[in-house]
Amino acid sequence: MSTTQENVQSASATYAASFTQGHLALPPAKHYLVLTCMDARIDPARAFGIELGDAHVIRNAGASAVDALRSVVISQQLLGTNEIILVKHTGCGMLTFKNEDAYGLVEQRLGPAATAELKEKNLDFLPFPELEAAVLQDVEFLKASKLVPESVTISGWVYEVETGKTRRVV
Amino acid sequence: MSTTQENVQSASATYAASFTQGHLALPPAKHYLVLTCMDARIDPARAFGIELGDAHVIRNAGASAVDALRSVVISQQLLGTNEIILVKHTGCGMLTFKNEDAYGLVEQRLGPAATAELKEKNLDFLPFPELEAAVLQDVEFLKASKLVPESVTISGWVYEVETGKTRRVV
Repeated sequence: MSTTQENVQSASATYAASFTQGHLALPPAKHYLVLTCMDARIDPARAFGIELGDAHVIRNAGASAVDALRSVVISQQLLGTNEIILVKHTGCGMLTFKNEDAYGLVEQRLGPAATAELKEKNLDFLPFPELEAAVLQDVEFLKASKLVPESVTISGWVYEVETGKTRRVV
Repeated sequence: MSTTQENVQSASATYAASFTQGHLALPPAKHYLVLTCMDARIDPARAFGIELGDAHVIRNAGASAVDALRSVVISQQLLGTNEIILVKHTGCGMLTFKNEDAYGLVEQRLGPAATAELKEKNLDFLPFPELEAAVLQDVEFLKASKLVPESVTISGWVYEVETGKTRRVV
């Protein structure tokens, strides 16, 4: 067993020992979803005030709305959420490269079979060059999608990894 | 401003007031990533013992490895992670429907333009009928992908929303 796997087991034993929320229902009690980045420096529950059971939390590289669309539709159509809090953040890795850089790394490190899989899956890494513009663009993408009804409230935010603050952009 | 937006602002002010971790680096300090579900009843940091800055956390509907592949490749190739903890959970919404059910709901509630967008994007909602089989299948998917090198350690787990426990499957 790896050190990380051992850590999961011991943390889980501690968590379960004082766990009292086994009664929570499947649909989010407060009917919203948070879409944010996978970045290790973000703890959405604490930073954005999400109580257990209240909201879906979708996380991917860059808090990409394009990448999250499947989950957003399931959250809304099957589990009744009607608000989206989209949060990108300062210092995001997605600001630091372009698709061709990532394709180059994959080719160099993993070889031609990996590049072939990238191309077969037509994988877009969805990096972005400017943070606030990307927040606006993703909010617009969600608003423009026919899969997100107009009744859904959408706001866009930036979390500052340097200060722990979250500020609204749109 | 919505109640949820007000809650984000007040929670953020409280969090930032005692925030002391603005020095953390972009790459995850413990070089692993957790892939789990967006489910509102999961708090990965507490349930799986993730300290701020230690690990990427990817979340989508059902903890789908297929859906997460873009983020997994970025995490590994650009930010140096080399271990995946994949955690699905009991009572998952993805166990409760089939693709055609979701397509039917979208058509009924959002109309033909939404259905056209679903088809244009060729959206697969990736539901699964059996929990542990889905954990095995997703671990196998990652192991079989040429985009995930053999040096990456991968384990599959189930979180029990009823008990707060996380148990290893593979």
